[in-house]
Amino acid sequence: MNGKATTRVVIVGAGFGGLNAAQALGNAPVSITVIDRQNHHTFQPLLYQVATAGLSPGEIAAPIRSILHRHKNVEVLMAEVTGFDLERRVVRIAAQSGEAQCNDVRNHEAQDYLENPAQEIPYDYLIVAAGASHAYFGHDEWETFAPGLKTVEDALEIRRRVLLAFELAERRAAAGEGSDPLNFVVVGGGPTGVELAGTLAEICRHALAQDFRCIDPRRARIHLIEGGLHVLPAYPEDLSRSALEQLQRLGVEVLTSTMVTNVEPGVVHMRATNGDKTMNAAVILWAAGVAASPLGKKLGVPIDRAGRVLVNPDLSLPGHPEVFVIGDLAALKDSSGKLLPGVAPVALQQGKFVAKLIRRETELAGTAPHSEAAPRPAFHYHDKGSLATIGRSAAIAQFGKIHISGFMAWLAWLFVHIFFLIGFRNRILVFIQWAWSYFTYERSARLITGSTNLPGWNEPRALNAAEGEPEEMSAVSRK
Amino acid sequence: MNGKATTRVVIVGAGFGGLNAAQALGNAPVSITVIDRQNHHTFQPLLYQVATAGLSPGEIAAPIRSILHRHKNVEVLMAEVTGFDLERRVVRIAAQSGEAQCNDVRNHEAQDYLENPAQEIPYDYLIVAAGASHAYFGHDEWETFAPGLKTVEDALEIRRRVLLAFELAERRAAAGEGSDPLNFVVVGGGPTGVELAGTLAEICRHALAQDFRCIDPRRARIHLIEGGLHVLPAYPEDLSRSALEQLQRLGVEVLTSTMVTNVEPGVVHMRATNGDKTMNAAVILWAAGVAASPLGKKLGVPIDRAGRVLVNPDLSLPGHPEVFVIGDLAALKDSSGKLLPGVAPVALQQGKFVAKLIRRETELAGTAPHSEAAPRPAFHYHDKGSLATIGRSAAIAQFGKIHISGFMAWLAWLFVHIFFLIGFRNRILVFIQWAWSYFTYERSARLITGSTNLPGWNEPRALNAAEGEPEEMSAVSRK
Repeated sequence: MNGKATTRVVIVGAGFGGLNAAQALGNAPVSITVIDRQNHHTFQPLLYQVATAGLSPGEIAAPIRSILHRHKNVEVLMAEVTGFDLERRVVRIAAQSGEAQCNDVRNHEAQDYLENPAQEIPYDYLIVAAGASHAYFGHDEWETFAPGLKTVEDALEIRRRVLLAFELAERRAAAGEGSDPLNFVVVGGGPTGVELAGTLAEICRHALAQDFRCIDPRRARIHLIEGGLHVLPAYPEDLSRSALEQLQRLGVEVLTSTMVTNVEPGVVHMRATNGDKTMNAAVILWAAGVAASPLGKKLGVPIDRAGRVLVNPDLSLPGHPEVFVIGDLAALKDSSGKLLPGVAPVALQQGKFVAKLIRRETELAGTAPHSEAAPRPAFHYHDKGSLATIGRSAAIAQFGKIHISGFMAWLAWLFVHIFFLIGFRNRILVFIQWAWSYFTYERSARLITGSTNLPGWNEPRALNAAEGEPEEMSAVSRK
Repeated sequence: MNGKATTRVVIVGAGFGGLNAAQALGNAPVSITVIDRQNHHTFQPLLYQVATAGLSPGEIAAPIRSILHRHKNVEVLMAEVTGFDLERRVVRIAAQSGEAQCNDVRNHEAQDYLENPAQEIPYDYLIVAAGASHAYFGHDEWETFAPGLKTVEDALEIRRRVLLAFELAERRAAAGEGSDPLNFVVVGGGPTGVELAGTLAEICRHALAQDFRCIDPRRARIHLIEGGLHVLPAYPEDLSRSALEQLQRLGVEVLTSTMVTNVEPGVVHMRATNGDKTMNAAVILWAAGVAASPLGKKLGVPIDRAGRVLVNPDLSLPGHPEVFVIGDLAALKDSSGKLLPGVAPVALQQGKFVAKLIRRETELAGTAPHSEAAPRPAFHYHDKGSLATIGRSAAIAQFGKIHISGFMAWLAWLFVHIFFLIGFRNRILVFIQWAWSYFTYERSARLITGSTNLPGWNEPRALNAAEGEPEEMSAVSRK
């Protein structure tokens, strides 16, 4: 490697980890390429607000280019990473989507390109921050009937299904075909499941209450299914219990110690301690499992059961000090031997930590790392506390030994999330939006776009009727 | 008909016409059913802002239910109208979309429903306000390669294509495969085409200028193709000429007297007075033709070439005083024999006019109209002026004999459009959004969602190279 050439840093993924690494290297003497499948960074903690029609996608997502555009040493590529060659130090990206679509036979150049599609991006340092997605525990066929919430597209799909369910129910009732209350089922009592269930309950009781003539949205039932003993099981038991009470006050029916065994169009099969259950549902939402990006496996080093890469204490790959894995994709234990949680602050701090390492080594050597490089410190997560929102004025918060519930926790949650929302303009607009919704109970983004089909929308069947033996037991618990 | 029964008014379509009719009948002694395929009213004059990433869909569209929810005599149904039976006085609607999707063979009830899907909605008065869509002059296959702009979905598709074109060009340039400037082609020099071309030019020169490293968005070329002699041909010639100058100042290349003869993926074929032309385009947008809703034809009365229904001077259907057609679907001439234009103020005034007629007759008779009913007045359009925007600080306006161009016309346009934007909250937010974009040149909604494919994205070919004989001559001129 030439000592005078600029050190090339490639960052895969522009979530909290990748973005913070890029920003922290923004004025370092390195050239950075950020690769992401999407053109935008998504502020995932507010995604549930898009799914429940409270915010528009543009209010919680911003183009990666525009977030990074003042750093002249950062280049952004919208591309799908397909693999790595750690020996040759290149990242492979898929052919341009547009090209793959080209079937214009007269265009031989494009045809050649199509047959040899992969491109390679060389690096001196590689940061893999490809994140995680929801997992169906080997039942990927359930996704069509029970979508999860990880991307803006997911959120729009959930919004479409929820709003459409009310429209279809109103039509059915107007035609005199019965007006049974709608059932919504949220699978998984982690933070996402709790947010979705709480907010759904809220909009049924308030935002939609006055808008229908034949059905009464306030009669809709929201069921939250959790495999474990408690909702929000990552929190201390007193906060968990408070979350349960706050959910019930909002009208959510919580079923704990209940495993989902099968999902069909509009039907959820469950196994609880007191027997098997079947529940009809207008909409089923999935918030139960997390699986790390399949890119972790492609690094060719040991991964854990959830697909997370077992990294060194400095977040580098065993045998590859020039490759780092950060965020939800990395499996790292803290000093007490507990795995670091897959939350934004961990990814954010890891991004900054790795950037600092690279900056120091680059400044020392003016080139890529050697095995003789100075020993690296270990990453330590500085836990500033954690918050989970449940609904309007309902949340829980833990700051070390301090536990807070209800309105004050919700205010803390609001403040932290608006403060960290990327992009100054968005912060103001989201705040205005929220202040407005808070006082008027209005939801501003109640648009149904896309298809008007709803899987499993058929004649209502008896609720909770016991049915034949469920197919298979599947561990569905907290994320 | 029973004189004591409540008069039933069915309104098909919740555009400007339908919505204003419903609102004007909001406290009348009638029961109203508004039927629309969408759950939202779209403020179409600002749709181009969504297509060009300036506004989010939620900012220019609002749920029909929530617009009308304070009128307790109004019921809203999200449904697709499939036809009418004018003798039996019923509107037919399609089966619920969710049902049509049902392939759960165990569910026989749903299966029965599927085989007998149509529902009928009876009426005493019917208002058909189903609007218009873009037309491809018999070449519907062009739509995939050159989308038009009528719905929120259309706008999102255009936004996706425009933003994706820059991303793909950056990737190509980063891979050393050339960096020819991007070509955008807008077909049709009416108000929509002019707005799209002007705003595209603006975002290439400003919003995107700093965000790319390998391509220079400022080099992108925007072509506006118009079949007639002038852009905005509905306006007096001095304003038309001013619009042309303002477009050129923004960097738009305007080709008048040029007919589009064929559209292929990424290629536009044209015929001009000086010969045939072929142009490559990263994105082709269609703003050339308008066709009335096919529901017009289903009323079984004479229609004109564009599919508009030839109505009586009171907007009723010949032979059916209880059926009205309003808005873009109606063909009505003013006192000078000129067809009323398909613009929002016409639809809005017609909606109010028809509501007033129905209210008067209902109050007089307490029932549906008879042939012996009092003679009805004719509808007269009160033209308060017209405005067309071109881009940042660029517009034209005509108020009777007063013609305005440039910044003052743009201010007038801004004021009128924000004032008429439906829903008070939206108005404030859109105004803040705009003020922000105006001073920062930022675009807030630059998200690519959905597929990452772009039709016809292949190796660039020579620009404007003459090619073989085009397939067919097609009249493409102003909308």
